[in-house]
Amino acid sequence: MPPAIPLIALLTDFGTKDYFVASMKGVILTIHPAARIVDISHDIGPHQIAEAAYCLQACYRTFPEGTVHVAVVDPGVGSHRRPILVATDRYYFVAPDNGVLTPIIDREAHVEIREIENRQYRLPSPGATFHGRDVFAPAAAWLATGAMLSSFGRLVSDPVRMNWPQPKVTARTIIGEIVYIDRFGNLISNISHAQIETCETGRPGILVEGHPIGNLVANYREGQADALHAVINSNGMLELFLKERPASEYLKIGLGTVVEIPCRR
Amino acid sequence: MPPAIPLIALLTDFGTKDYFVASMKGVILTIHPAARIVDISHDIGPHQIAEAAYCLQACYRTFPEGTVHVAVVDPGVGSHRRPILVATDRYYFVAPDNGVLTPIIDREAHVEIREIENRQYRLPSPGATFHGRDVFAPAAAWLATGAMLSSFGRLVSDPVRMNWPQPKVTARTIIGEIVYIDRFGNLISNISHAQIETCETGRPGILVEGHPIGNLVANYREGQADALHAVINSNGMLELFLKERPASEYLKIGLGTVVEIPCRR
Amino acid sequence: MPPAIPLIALLTDFGTKDYFVASMKGVILTIHPAARIVDISHDIGPHQIAEAAYCLQACYRTFPEGTVHVAVVDPGVGSHRRPILVATDRYYFVAPDNGVLTPIIDREAHVEIREIENRQYRLPSPGATFHGRDVFAPAAAWLATGAMLSSFGRLVSDPVRMNWPQPKVTARTIIGEIVYIDRFGNLISNISHAQIETCETGRPGILVEGHPIGNLVANYREGQADALHAVINSNGMLELFLKERPASEYLKIGLGTVVEIPCRR
Repeated sequence: MPPAIPLIALLTDFGTKDYFVASMKGVILTIHPAARIVDISHDIGPHQIAEAAYCLQACYRTFPEGTVHVAVVDPGVGSHRRPILVATDRYYFVAPDNGVLTPIIDREAHVEIREIENRQYRLPSPGATFHGRDVFAPAAAWLATGAMLSSFGRLVSDPVRMNWPQPKVTARTIIGEIVYIDRFGNLISNISHAQIETCETGRPGILVEGHPIGNLVANYREGQADALHAVINSNGMLELFLKERPASEYLKIGLGTVVEIPCRR
Repeated sequence: MPPAIPLIALLTDFGTKDYFVASMKGVILTIHPAARIVDISHDIGPHQIAEAAYCLQACYRTFPEGTVHVAVVDPGVGSHRRPILVATDRYYFVAPDNGVLTPIIDREAHVEIREIENRQYRLPSPGATFHGRDVFAPAAAWLATGAMLSSFGRLVSDPVRMNWPQPKVTARTIIGEIVYIDRFGNLISNISHAQIETCETGRPGILVEGHPIGNLVANYREGQADALHAVINSNGMLELFLKERPASEYLKIGLGTVVEIPCRR
Repeated sequence: MPPAIPLIALLTDFGTKDYFVASMKGVILTIHPAARIVDISHDIGPHQIAEAAYCLQACYRTFPEGTVHVAVVDPGVGSHRRPILVATDRYYFVAPDNGVLTPIIDREAHVEIREIENRQYRLPSPGATFHGRDVFAPAAAWLATGAMLSSFGRLVSDPVRMNWPQPKVTARTIIGEIVYIDRFGNLISNISHAQIETCETGRPGILVEGHPIGNLVANYREGQADALHAVINSNGMLELFLKERPASEYLKIGLGTVVEIPCRR
C-alpha cells in the first residue's frame, strides 16, 4: 500500500547547474502528480559512489516510512550494469547496481532486491546516457503509486558490492579510517560510539596516522584552538574537528587517514 | 482551467546563496498557497541568457501539462524591456522579453505571447531591480490559479529573439558548434540525431575544429581513454566526452567550437 | 490555529553537499507529513550569523502568514546557548539564541520569545552536534502542527543580541556601511530609502570611503560602465553596483566599507 503522502528523495552527482535534476522531477510529477520530492544532495562528486553511499546511509532513516530513495551516481550508465530496486521493512531504494546501496543492504534485516526490467516503467529515449530520467525517476514514481514489487522484474541475489571499510577491532586497539569529509572540513571516521564503549574505561588517547591528538570532547566548542579534537557525532560516529576551522584543509587530512584508539581494558 | 495540482518551475541566475529565490517562492505561496514549486536551476551564469534558454528547452517537456515555467535571467531589469508570458498547447512560460524563450517559441506549433501589463498581477516595490519577485513570481502564481491569458495584457507579435545557432546542413557536411557544457565537462553540440541520420550511412568521422576525434559510441563507458568520443545524448543531440573526465577542462574546448560531420551519401 | 497549508522555511550554513539538510527535512516530514518545506538558503558562510540574519530579515515577509522560519547557523551547538522560538503577529521563528533573530525582534511590534525546553519536541541523539536535526527541525514541525507556544518552554526576556549596525543620521550627513554582498557582487548598505529622503532635496553625492562615486540611478542598466553607481534596491536599501560586473571583486570593496551621503537641507 502506498503511503498517504508519497515521498521521493533524490541523491545524485548531477549538480545543480544543469537541467538534469529538473528532468527527473518533471518525469516523476508527470507520472505521479501528487508525489512530493525532497533533495538529499546533488553535489556528490562526479562518479563518487562511496560518497553517495555514505550520505544515503547517514540520513535515510530520518524519513517517513514508505519514502522512495533514489540514488543516481552512475558512471556505468548505458553499459550492462543493472538498474535495481531494494525494499526494506520501511523504505524503498532505486539505484544502479554499482554498490551505492551496499550499506543499506548490509544494515537492514529484511531486503528484497529486484532488477528493474519492466519496460512499462521506463521512458523511451533517443540515447543511453540519462537513466536518472529514463529509468530511475519513472521507477521511483511508479513505486510511489503503489506498483507491486514483483512487477518490476526478477529477484537479484548477487548485488554488486562496494568496498565499505569496517574498522579492525581487537582486544588492544580499534583501527579505523576517515570515510567522509563534510562541508565544514570535519573528518568522519568509521569508528562507532558503540565500538569505543566496548574498548575503553577512561577517555581514549586517539592517534591519527600514529600521532596523538586532543581529547574526545562533548561538542565543537570544547577543546583547545588549533588542536585536532574528536567528538561523537550526530550519527554516533567518531569525528575529528578543529574549532571553527576546516580540519581537512588546515591539516591536509584526507579520506583513508588511519585513526587508532588504544584500548585500556 | 488550472491543473489539479498547480506546478511552477523556476529557472534563474540568482544563485542559492542569497534570499532572492526564497523571496520569489514566498510571493508565489502567498498568492497561491497550494502551488507546488520545482527548481530547474538557479546556477545559470549571471546574465547568461543563452545558457538559461538551453536548460529550459532541454527539460520543459518532461513536466506535467499546465506547468508554469518561470525563467528570470534579466540583465535589463528595470529598463524598458517587456515582461512577457507565452502559452503553448501544454505549458505556460513567464520571462523577460530578452530572447530566453526563443527556443520554445521556435519549437512550439501554437504560441500565444502577451505582455504582462496588468498591475493587479504585480507587487509594489520601492525599487526597480527585482522583477523576479515583483513581476514574474506573482504572474506565475496568478497563471497557476487559472487567471485568463487575456487579462495579463496585450498580444505581442515581435518578441525579442536570441541568437540560437542552427547547424549548416549540406549534401556533403553538417557543420555545427558546441552550445552547452554540462557539469561533467561534456560538450553538447547543436547537431541532432535526426540530422546525422539524414547524412550518412556508416559511422561518421567527426571533426572538431578540423581534427578527427574518436568514434560515435553508444555510451560513456565505450571508446578509448584520453580520446574525445561522441554519443547521442538523452535529448537526441551529438555530445562530445572524455571517459570519466571533464573534456572541457582537459582539452580546453569551449562554447562555439566547430563540430563537422562529413556525409557519405 | 495552524495554517491550512503548513509551511516551513529553512535557512542554514549546512551547504548542499552533505546529508544535513536532508536529515532535517526527513525529521520534519516524519512528524508532520503534510508540511511543505521551502529552502531560503543553505549556502550561508559557515558560522556567519550576521549573513544569515541579513538574508532572513530580507525575505521573511514575502512568506504566507503562519510560516515557520528555521534559522540554523549555530557555532555554539552543544554548548549552553539556548534554543529559542519567536512568535510574531504573522510568523514563527526557530533558532539558536545567538542573535540571528535580532533584526526580526527589533522590527516586529509584538514578539513572544520562548526557550525550547520540552523534551517531547526533541529527538534523542547519540551526540550533541546536530541540533538542526534533533532540536530545531522537530520544534518547527510541532509548531506547524499547531502545538501551543507555552508548551515549548519558559518565556525569554533577554535574547542574545547580534551587532546589527545602524547608520548614523545627523542634520549634515548619513554615515552607513556595507552590510551584505550578493552573488552578483552588488554591495548592499544599511542606509534606507526613507533615510535618504529625509536628508536631501536633490540627488545625493555619495562617498565610499571618502571618495565620490557615480550617481544614484534608477536601475542596473543606467550609469557609466566601470563607475560605481548606486540604486535603491528591492528592499528599499541603498545598494552599490558596477554595470554587469561584480563590484566587490573588481573594486575590492568588502563588508564594513563606509558609505556617506552629505545632506543638502
